[in-house]
Amino acid sequence: MKIGVDIGGTGIQAGGVNAEGKIVVRNSVPANAQAGYKAMSLSIGELINKTAAEINEKFPEDPAESVGIGVPGVISPDGATVVKAVNIFWENVPLKKDIEALTGLATALGNDATVAGVAENRFGATKGADSAAMYTVGTGVGGSLILFGHIVKGAHGSATEFGHMYAGDDTYTCNCGKNGCLETFSSATGLIKEAQRRIAAGEQTTILEAAGANPENINAKMVIDAAKAGDAVGTACFNRMTDKLAQNMAGVTDVVDPAVIAVGGGVSAAGDFLFDALNQKYRSYLTFPDAVTTKIVPAQFGNDAGIIGSAYIWDYLTD
Amino acid sequence: MKIGVDIGGTGIQAGGVNAEGKIVVRNSVPANAQAGYKAMSLSIGELINKTAAEINEKFPEDPAESVGIGVPGVISPDGATVVKAVNIFWENVPLKKDIEALTGLATALGNDATVAGVAENRFGATKGADSAAMYTVGTGVGGSLILFGHIVKGAHGSATEFGHMYAGDDTYTCNCGKNGCLETFSSATGLIKEAQRRIAAGEQTTILEAAGANPENINAKMVIDAAKAGDAVGTACFNRMTDKLAQNMAGVTDVVDPAVIAVGGGVSAAGDFLFDALNQKYRSYLTFPDAVTTKIVPAQFGNDAGIIGSAYIWDYLTD
Repeated sequence: MKIGVDIGGTGIQAGGVNAEGKIVVRNSVPANAQAGYKAMSLSIGELINKTAAEINEKFPEDPAESVGIGVPGVISPDGATVVKAVNIFWENVPLKKDIEALTGLATALGNDATVAGVAENRFGATKGADSAAMYTVGTGVGGSLILFGHIVKGAHGSATEFGHMYAGDDTYTCNCGKNGCLETFSSATGLIKEAQRRIAAGEQTTILEAAGANPENINAKMVIDAAKAGDAVGTACFNRMTDKLAQNMAGVTDVVDPAVIAVGGGVSAAGDFLFDALNQKYRSYLTFPDAVTTKIVPAQFGNDAGIIGSAYIWDYLTD
Repeated sequence: MKIGVDIGGTGIQAGGVNAEGKIVVRNSVPANAQAGYKAMSLSIGELINKTAAEINEKFPEDPAESVGIGVPGVISPDGATVVKAVNIFWENVPLKKDIEALTGLATALGNDATVAGVAENRFGATKGADSAAMYTVGTGVGGSLILFGHIVKGAHGSATEFGHMYAGDDTYTCNCGKNGCLETFSSATGLIKEAQRRIAAGEQTTILEAAGANPENINAKMVIDAAKAGDAVGTACFNRMTDKLAQNMAGVTDVVDPAVIAVGGGVSAAGDFLFDALNQKYRSYLTFPDAVTTKIVPAQFGNDAGIIGSAYIWDYLTD
């Protein structure tokens, strides 16, 4: 059985994932990023050993065979090193080697957005597609791309950063230092900032009531709920987000023309209201609308995508 | 020996390409697109048979073995049909089957921009790179992408249309019907239109003299030469073109992170003046400038790219 590990900013989850994509053993520890990489890697190793022991005891016919780890950061092209993971303060750490030494299990690393795409392609919303893109729309916009049945990592591990593609000139600068990144338009953060900007400019909206009259309390759900109810500011913010996201998806289609595009992350909870708008706008931005039949669909795995996708990253490696 | 065929708007070239990428036998016929597909395909079949006979006579140890055809249009995902080639009036024509029947040689089809990328990857500017992008910058902007050693055609044959990705709001609408396509900024056409627009707005420039005082006579070389000489309008047009092209290349890097990017087409004749500007601007637009070492380099094959790349498309197919 494959073990998947999902490293988050606050907690680290591990699971034994069976051949049907079900998590049949599950454990977790706090992330404790302040303790530093050495302590964290030891803690991850123990978590994996504990999970492996439980798998071997409960499923002797399907013992622990491999480990995949989803990391919130950039992985080196050879898949051995976490080049940078800012939220947990890692830089150039040899995680693959260290975990293999601690567990005796073959270990593969993947970016967290990438492994979410793997989970969907192996068992979920893009299952069976030889080419698939996935967008994770939350605080930022993460990306994943599978082509020819392989994860696209890029020559320098820098591929599938859809959130940092140019989408137009924007009213604020992205965390990455550039202006005009997709995620400043089409993330939860971008949605909230646009609502706050309009409120500061004096526009009237029900969003302010929902936030208890304090713009600092606005969240993405409040903005989308206002759009659903026909509020003008909510609608303008929602249209801005979906316009730029759909246009970017058409741009990614101009590059690789994936068979299907999944969207996960917190914003995807908006349901049909979101997906109907995205699909309609996507078609209007396509270069070849007569040829391209690609649909934008909701991701099926929420918080479990990290464990499931990490476990099955092995099926998508080129070597 | 492999035979490559390059179908252009005015002429059709065929060549026998040896294992070193040299064209050792060469023939051509006029395109005669008005005669219709049936007559054209017969003419292409005869051209190939003539070329094959010459190969077999001159190189009996390396006889004609296969045919690749570069087409200025969209190829179906299965590689059998030309879905649309507007310049030669083809729509849904079974070129692969017809040429195989006429010649008895296994035949593969490729988009003309795609096969240019194959020529560079097999023998030229991106040789040896497992992942490579190519831009053909002329009247429009064509694209080619090789990943995992395969041509990226897309699930619907609609991939690598870099010229139609969103680059910003523009002063005129693209031939495709959208506004803001890269090629309205960064093709020879876009360069010329911007110079004409500035002249119509009353801006003073040496470009007008070079064009014999008639803006209709302006070509891309006149604009770039003016930029090289420091003319303000030439410089503004050149900067607009290279800014948007470099930003798009950074965007394609955000999607697939290729190891190298080649640029061919008429505009690439501008040499170091162009490539120095592109490389400098590209680095400024990269999301991970510390990780990405990709260089933008001139394509090595001019008019022969079509023949060479078509012949070797076989090495890049997935099936």
